[in-house]
Amino acid sequence: MGGDQAPEIVIQGAELFLQRDRPARVLLFGDQDQLKPLLKAAPLLSESCEIFHTSEAVSMSDKPGQVLRKGRQTSMWLAVNAVHEGRAQAIVSAGNTGALMALAKFQLRTMPGIDRPALGTVWPTRKGQCVILDVGANIEATAKQLADFAMLGWAFARTVLNQENPEIAILNIGSEELKGPDVLRDAAAILRDERLGINFTGFVEGNDLTMGRADVVVTDGFTGNVALKTAEGTARMLAYFMRAAFHGSMLNRLGGWIASGAFRNLKNLMDPNRINGGVFLGLNGIVVKSHGAADSVGFASALDLAASLAGGEFSGRISESLSRLNDKLGPGESDHASPGGEGSDELNTGVATQNT
Amino acid sequence: MGGDQAPEIVIQGAELFLQRDRPARVLLFGDQDQLKPLLKAAPLLSESCEIFHTSEAVSMSDKPGQVLRKGRQTSMWLAVNAVHEGRAQAIVSAGNTGALMALAKFQLRTMPGIDRPALGTVWPTRKGQCVILDVGANIEATAKQLADFAMLGWAFARTVLNQENPEIAILNIGSEELKGPDVLRDAAAILRDERLGINFTGFVEGNDLTMGRADVVVTDGFTGNVALKTAEGTARMLAYFMRAAFHGSMLNRLGGWIASGAFRNLKNLMDPNRINGGVFLGLNGIVVKSHGAADSVGFASALDLAASLAGGEFSGRISESLSRLNDKLGPGESDHASPGGEGSDELNTGVATQNT
Repeated sequence: MGGDQAPEIVIQGAELFLQRDRPARVLLFGDQDQLKPLLKAAPLLSESCEIFHTSEAVSMSDKPGQVLRKGRQTSMWLAVNAVHEGRAQAIVSAGNTGALMALAKFQLRTMPGIDRPALGTVWPTRKGQCVILDVGANIEATAKQLADFAMLGWAFARTVLNQENPEIAILNIGSEELKGPDVLRDAAAILRDERLGINFTGFVEGNDLTMGRADVVVTDGFTGNVALKTAEGTARMLAYFMRAAFHGSMLNRLGGWIASGAFRNLKNLMDPNRINGGVFLGLNGIVVKSHGAADSVGFASALDLAASLAGGEFSGRISESLSRLNDKLGPGESDHASPGGEGSDELNTGVATQNT
Repeated sequence: MGGDQAPEIVIQGAELFLQRDRPARVLLFGDQDQLKPLLKAAPLLSESCEIFHTSEAVSMSDKPGQVLRKGRQTSMWLAVNAVHEGRAQAIVSAGNTGALMALAKFQLRTMPGIDRPALGTVWPTRKGQCVILDVGANIEATAKQLADFAMLGWAFARTVLNQENPEIAILNIGSEELKGPDVLRDAAAILRDERLGINFTGFVEGNDLTMGRADVVVTDGFTGNVALKTAEGTARMLAYFMRAAFHGSMLNRLGGWIASGAFRNLKNLMDPNRINGGVFLGLNGIVVKSHGAADSVGFASALDLAASLAGGEFSGRISESLSRLNDKLGPGESDHASPGGEGSDELNTGVATQNT
């Protein structure tokens, strides 16, 4: 029930996702009176899905604290719970980000040694893609938390970018004189330790993000969120100017018409729907946040991302990378369950369909 | 002597600047053995400039502390000193940013009530331009300092954007649940006071920067620097993809060729050289930092910016806005001189030509 056009695009997106022959089952959490009519136009989903009816849903304006106290019958809570209980390997939601983070953290708990989960996402670069985290789960981060993010990002990049040995860097500012806050240098000192077995390359600047200078870019959630949204805004402004440029003279229009094929390629490269989905990393379970404004293609991408993470060696890689960090820093906690779902042929993807 | 191609582009840029009929004189600080041969190709500059010879120059790798201790004979020091002594109304440098900031702060001092200067710059938006500060002078800022930046930005926007009543906003992240750090809310509380006589509109997000949702965007220097460089990198990546898109099939090439006029318009709109120049705001004097990679057109833009600030009502507006903030917050210091140069018909623009 979550996102700007829920539940329509959620149902359409799940149908698109299944058309790609993913070996997955979909659990739908939400209002069956709204969901059932939509399923008529989604034959694959109708065949393989299961509806868990609830009339309650988290709204975009609900505060996370409210949802934690009173939201146990909401579709978001129930969907997260399905992951917690192992009935689903991943949850995908386009709903309220803060509530999703709070519910996921409360029910799934953080992995051993992790204080706070981070929101990671895939970012287009000249060379392909990189991973950036945190892009908004926390507004600040200690050096240890930044080091955690690096290890989480390492596992994430290996899985979603298919990089065997991803280059990891910390986002900083470039002036030689002002090398940024102490916390970034402290985090770099942790990550330079060779025993971690990662490829840490130091600091990168904002303009390096799109150059593809690193495969994993580590930052706090405030800075990461500003950078991500600034890049989105810049891309949108350029697209706006480009459209305007091709609507001037007849010659410009003609050029635009002839070049429309090239534009489609460019649009595909930069389409946020193609790489839709932030992942809350560091939890005992896979939680994917779709953009609230995503269309059905975008929601299908978020489901694809969830399926890649649930079906791959992601969980094992995360556990491995974190235990190396914790071994180095001293004994961590070990009272958390490891994330489940690895190696399953058939995945249960819990789709929370929260109302907006 | 500063910037990637100094002193060539400095001389060429100053010549371009004078071709625009600016009523200005140019003081050149640097190595006369390098400068004089270049002046042969710059007739207007040769006629109106004065060379202040020194063989010492700040390099890009010099630490600000070193320059403060031992750099009294560098071209940068001498050029800043010309502003301090009222022999020039503004300094423009493409050299070492940290050293320029340190020398300017040491010699010119901050204005009454200002702890730290901020680096402000002009940013392209869909609607035109906005001002953003701080983009790198400080790595963090208190609520009071952010409020100072807002007032400095107000005066800057009124002068360079010709906005009578610019809308001022603070850069934050958008999640309703995590409204960003306390310091931003504290700064907003100060700026909401109607007695300041400004048009404060609250928070904006990264994607709002290019939408033109505010005329003045206030942030700390770390976040501002990351945002600025991320936007630059995104624009450059899109230009790169666009060129690639128009070099595929013959049809794409044809479209690109026909549309080259439209592209030129777009390139002009987004050309960083057109709006080159960061301004250190809050000092008793005008200090403009040109991008180190600027070409002669870019350096001329930086000189234009300096001339606009020196010739306009900028200094009076800054004093006015700061005294309103200080009246509200309590009595400020008043032992600083007010910035000079206002109303002068002929401007002395000190150009520091530091070596890289």
